Amino acid sequence: MTLIEDARKGVVTDFVKKAAEYEGIEAEKLIRLISHGYVVLPKNVRREEVQPRAIGMLTSTKVNANVGTSADYINVEEEVEKAIIAQKAGADAVMDLSSGGDLDAIRKRIMEVVEVPFGTVPIYQAARDCHRVVDMDEDDFFRVVEKHAKDGVDFMTIHAGVNWVSVERLRRSKRLLGVVSRGGAITIGWMLHNEKENPYYKDFDYLLEILKEYDVTISLGDAYRPGCIHDAGDRAKYTEFIMLGELVEKCREKGVQCMVEGPGHVPLDQIETSVRAMKSVTDNAPLYLLGPLVTDIAAGYDHIAAAIGAAIAGMAGADFICYVTPSEHLALPTVEDVREGVIAAKIAAHAIDLIKEGQRERARQRDYEMSLARKNLDWERQFELSIDPEKAREIYSRRKSESEACSMCGDLCAIKLVKEAFERD
Amino acid sequence: MTLIEDARKGVVTDFVKKAAEYEGIEAEKLIRLISHGYVVLPKNVRREEVQPRAIGMLTSTKVNANVGTSADYINVEEEVEKAIIAQKAGADAVMDLSSGGDLDAIRKRIMEVVEVPFGTVPIYQAARDCHRVVDMDEDDFFRVVEKHAKDGVDFMTIHAGVNWVSVERLRRSKRLLGVVSRGGAITIGWMLHNEKENPYYKDFDYLLEILKEYDVTISLGDAYRPGCIHDAGDRAKYTEFIMLGELVEKCREKGVQCMVEGPGHVPLDQIETSVRAMKSVTDNAPLYLLGPLVTDIAAGYDHIAAAIGAAIAGMAGADFICYVTPSEHLALPTVEDVREGVIAAKIAAHAIDLIKEGQRERARQRDYEMSLARKNLDWERQFELSIDPEKAREIYSRRKSESEACSMCGDLCAIKLVKEAFERD
Repeated sequence: MTLIEDARKGVVTDFVKKAAEYEGIEAEKLIRLISHGYVVLPKNVRREEVQPRAIGMLTSTKVNANVGTSADYINVEEEVEKAIIAQKAGADAVMDLSSGGDLDAIRKRIMEVVEVPFGTVPIYQAARDCHRVVDMDEDDFFRVVEKHAKDGVDFMTIHAGVNWVSVERLRRSKRLLGVVSRGGAITIGWMLHNEKENPYYKDFDYLLEILKEYDVTISLGDAYRPGCIHDAGDRAKYTEFIMLGELVEKCREKGVQCMVEGPGHVPLDQIETSVRAMKSVTDNAPLYLLGPLVTDIAAGYDHIAAAIGAAIAGMAGADFICYVTPSEHLALPTVEDVREGVIAAKIAAHAIDLIKEGQRERARQRDYEMSLARKNLDWERQFELSIDPEKAREIYSRRKSESEACSMCGDLCAIKLVKEAFERD
Repeated sequence: MTLIEDARKGVVTDFVKKAAEYEGIEAEKLIRLISHGYVVLPKNVRREEVQPRAIGMLTSTKVNANVGTSADYINVEEEVEKAIIAQKAGADAVMDLSSGGDLDAIRKRIMEVVEVPFGTVPIYQAARDCHRVVDMDEDDFFRVVEKHAKDGVDFMTIHAGVNWVSVERLRRSKRLLGVVSRGGAITIGWMLHNEKENPYYKDFDYLLEILKEYDVTISLGDAYRPGCIHDAGDRAKYTEFIMLGELVEKCREKGVQCMVEGPGHVPLDQIETSVRAMKSVTDNAPLYLLGPLVTDIAAGYDHIAAAIGAAIAGMAGADFICYVTPSEHLALPTVEDVREGVIAAKIAAHAIDLIKEGQRERARQRDYEMSLARKNLDWERQFELSIDPEKAREIYSRRKSESEACSMCGDLCAIKLVKEAFERD
């Protein structure tokens, strides 16, 4: 029985109980949300221990960190270190997107250090295993999915919304950058070359059977995510939303947990509409966002452009934020980039939780305590409550103040001045 | 005659012409906006050369960088370097907030390197010149304003919205952090101790006379800005909006350019309301924002928390973004912090311009060209168009790809794959 089927029967497992505790909500409420598909709780039956991370309605906003080799740069232990650092910085999920080296070995090695839900994009490996991407046969698409499922992968991105209907919309579109999703590009390239429908779409039921056997959560991939501001919000992307919405319905019918991925590069004023449209056509499936990046020109600082977009998307209902690192658009990230990326996404996630139904009160408590520590000029407590205690301490320490305040204002500290004035008064 | 009076007479000066060119709008339109007070164009008559930076409706979103010593840390040449770096990174204005050392000498020294509008908060110096803040007499408040005006300061923050009406609202408020504005705190402390009305409020007309003589733009200070999420959007702050709105009217009557400053720490879902309320009660005065910071716990990364808030505020009408550095809440920033702070604010500003009436088309052109360069895998052009070309180049270069793509995807570059597939097709 899958987790969603258990939930529908009202069974509260230990895992669900732990997840509910982590969220600060009642277990009964959580299983109701899971049974409707409004929340997913990824865990492969083959994985012995996973930290529960519920994603979706009423639960705290989660952050994913991508790690993995590329053809140009294969250093497995560095990717392992990234996975460790990402979790230390607060990542709620880690995806291995490796596409260079011995992919099976790399995946297993990274999984060893990942305690939170672990995800992959199987088609990268399917494509890598062939001489040319277009040489894959239909079985290759499913073979890797099954392999990853057997290895214990908790969630997988599958670009099943790519089909002839959406490809036709893409062909008629006036996109500048076409397709920027790797998985989407592989699939479309394969379809056009072989003149065949996307196997993941055509045989979606078969795909679900495999996933169901291992209780893998499907993350319906965002093949048409706009790769630049110019391409945002076009008909190809909206068509994919609709296709994904249909597939969400199938997943729920079959008892497979699913979430939906979203764009991409999106200008500020289109984010809310885009998120609400996705939520509408997918009947409130948990929404997993890459970015959205609010400008194309922030190379070197795309973690900031993405944090802006994520926060706005979160206001409109996004649940799960895929981090973006300062290396985005430029290179494979370093370990330090990974840390920066996770923290930027965590800031957005926490800002969202400060206003998110079900999480608001708990999230605000932390900010309240931080501000209380500020009022009391209690620096140790401030470091403790900071998103990155080490960094906060380091900045504070490099310039000690003569006063009990910090070196910014010193004796002209506003908090001190007014506190004293009202006390005297 | 002041700039606003010229504008009302329909006089298009060379300075206005340059400003209009910089904005890509017609000079006639610009003077109409200035004459209504919807746009300010700060320039002290005593300053020979200033780069024109129009702030407000239909003009591009501007960024300010604060520099200056504190009592604990006085290194004038470092502050000078910060001012230079800030402008290099794209700051449209620089404020000297020094409160330690020989303030006159420091101000003059920093001004030497500032080519964009230069601002100060005169009350810091007034307070510093006295043994105790509360010992200032009423003349001290104005004496420093006149001194700064004579020295050529283009815009000054004056906390004139602090009066007994707003102080009473503060007293009745249930704030956790009280007042966190340094200028606000000094003023309130002085009022309570001396049992006297704020001289800037009481003798606002006299203040305007001084400012008018040198055509200084007044930036109506945000004394009650919330210092934490808990304190956001309370009655003290809304009362100040109203007071500032009344003062805006006076400034416009007297022919003094003015803008209004805004909060502070504000949760995501209150930013839009807050900005729209300010715009409403101030009749669309240009809005100068510090942050808003969308959480209290981002110490060490407050430039990111602020960029999120600024972008959302910009969607609702904010015009001028005061940068926040990674050192905020912890220490006086370093030169590198200043650069990071400016760039984060510039990203938000550009994201806003991508959707801002009057600027949208021009801003989008840059993103379009960037994306075109991405499509063509033209790396040099991508660096050129990046918000920080050096940083982008450095990240790209540290991991060269074997392919013409970057080391992130290498030969699985999505852009390449689909381009080739459609071309073959």
